[in-house]
Amino acid sequence: MLQIITTINEIKQSIQNIKDNRLTIGFVPTMGALHEGHLNLIRQARKENDRVIVSIFVNPLQFGKNEDFKQYPRTFDKDCELLSMEGVDILFSPSATEMYPEGFCVSVIIEHLEDKLCGRLRQGHFRGVSIIVTKLFNIIKPDNAYFGQKDFQQTVIIKRLVADLNLDVNIKVHETIRDKDGLALSSRNLCLNKTERQEATCLYRSLTKAKSLVSAGTTNPEEIIHEMEKIINDCKTAKIDYISIVNPETLELVTNVNRGDVAVLAVKVGNIRLIDNMILMLLLTVQLLFLYF
Amino acid sequence: MLQIITTINEIKQSIQNIKDNRLTIGFVPTMGALHEGHLNLIRQARKENDRVIVSIFVNPLQFGKNEDFKQYPRTFDKDCELLSMEGVDILFSPSATEMYPEGFCVSVIIEHLEDKLCGRLRQGHFRGVSIIVTKLFNIIKPDNAYFGQKDFQQTVIIKRLVADLNLDVNIKVHETIRDKDGLALSSRNLCLNKTERQEATCLYRSLTKAKSLVSAGTTNPEEIIHEMEKIINDCKTAKIDYISIVNPETLELVTNVNRGDVAVLAVKVGNIRLIDNMILMLLLTVQLLFLYF
Repeated sequence: MLQIITTINEIKQSIQNIKDNRLTIGFVPTMGALHEGHLNLIRQARKENDRVIVSIFVNPLQFGKNEDFKQYPRTFDKDCELLSMEGVDILFSPSATEMYPEGFCVSVIIEHLEDKLCGRLRQGHFRGVSIIVTKLFNIIKPDNAYFGQKDFQQTVIIKRLVADLNLDVNIKVHETIRDKDGLALSSRNLCLNKTERQEATCLYRSLTKAKSLVSAGTTNPEEIIHEMEKIINDCKTAKIDYISIVNPETLELVTNVNRGDVAVLAVKVGNIRLIDNMILMLLLTVQLLFLYF
Repeated sequence: MLQIITTINEIKQSIQNIKDNRLTIGFVPTMGALHEGHLNLIRQARKENDRVIVSIFVNPLQFGKNEDFKQYPRTFDKDCELLSMEGVDILFSPSATEMYPEGFCVSVIIEHLEDKLCGRLRQGHFRGVSIIVTKLFNIIKPDNAYFGQKDFQQTVIIKRLVADLNLDVNIKVHETIRDKDGLALSSRNLCLNKTERQEATCLYRSLTKAKSLVSAGTTNPEEIIHEMEKIINDCKTAKIDYISIVNPETLELVTNVNRGDVAVLAVKVGNIRLIDNMILMLLLTVQLLFLYF
């Protein structure tokens, strides 16, 4: 039976009960408009923990002034149905004033990581993410917290946050869930019109191109990015925000692609900004050759 | 028996044991060079908790480039003796690399509060305080944490931090402990020469002057500060950093002194920067008059 809680005091009591019974907590923070990507995280959490808590909070602090806070899809009733079906124990859906009461003035900064990639164009976005995640972790006290790899930079920042603030939570990153044509699932996909939806596959196609180039031995990031750009630029509704190949921990641009480096990109399709990424692996046979010789 | 722990992993195990036994933890964070002010906090913690944990960590992040990090007094062996005598259970004294390993890059900012008073002159100081307190709270998970009122701005910032980050700890602020002549106890007093030590009472004398002016009905902060300045300026070794009268929560300068407002000051005596503060109360009789009429 899904319990819906909207206040911090009330959820703290529930958490205390769970902890008193020495049960483990799996936590999936979301902004709602749940899709199969979220549900996969929830199923993972359901498998690995005694209790599963999901939060729905469209966090105003992680939207910029000219961003889509108001337009961000909200499908609360349908979300609740889905959470019930997945056997979630508690939905925490606080109001903005519950999370940021008058006088609130703390900010959490991840220097070096927050101003790169998406952070360069979305000023303050990752501070908003960092503060809400810190608050939610402190309130929910989860043993495990689940994030999708689609938000790659976010996962890197949250791992850093947990390490640097000595938070007691395991961060579990789940692979990106995609539609049949490869488009990464995202709540924002709901806002695409038909043409845009078709062309939106260019993100995935450019990433698989990158992966195959690396598999075939290309290690020059400029060469790879150039091929990716060609695929995006072929789409009339698509406009590149950035394409980069980065180290998976520091998010620094690489000058030579190594195993585990990540191709990341943000593309505006119509008015909707989409992101995606892919870990670049050498072909298994190539790796084996390196191992053997 | 005082247990000395230097690694985060080891203390986390001890904390887990304490929590498993459902015992309460009182925590007193310090930078060592313990004096009667610290010992008072520890005695308070001893009374109110099952276990008492003290940390000694001279936090490099809260010292500016030209400040006294290297000169800050370190009296570890004597500190351990004192902690044993007070019945402290655990001393946590990590190294700087234990707290800030390579790659560390999180910062915690308390906007509006950190750039005032001491923060205006000690750039980055309160970020350093905020990050170490957040880390220590997350590691030690205390029920109660004890701070001296002498570091007034610090107590305001830490209360804000705990509220805004939803940390589960009660912040207990203990009155300032003073020498017989009124000088607030501070580890830095050890660095004063004889003349400076004598003249250092000017902080206390100026604060009591402020208090008596307010008791007598003065509500104009400029008038009060002017009288305080005269007392400090009479001392040859003393140089005013700032004198302010502020709201105790927002730290905003007040234009008219109300009950509970705080006079705060920082004065360099020789090369040693000392701080002190006093809550300004109206005379009890005056308050009673207000209550009755």
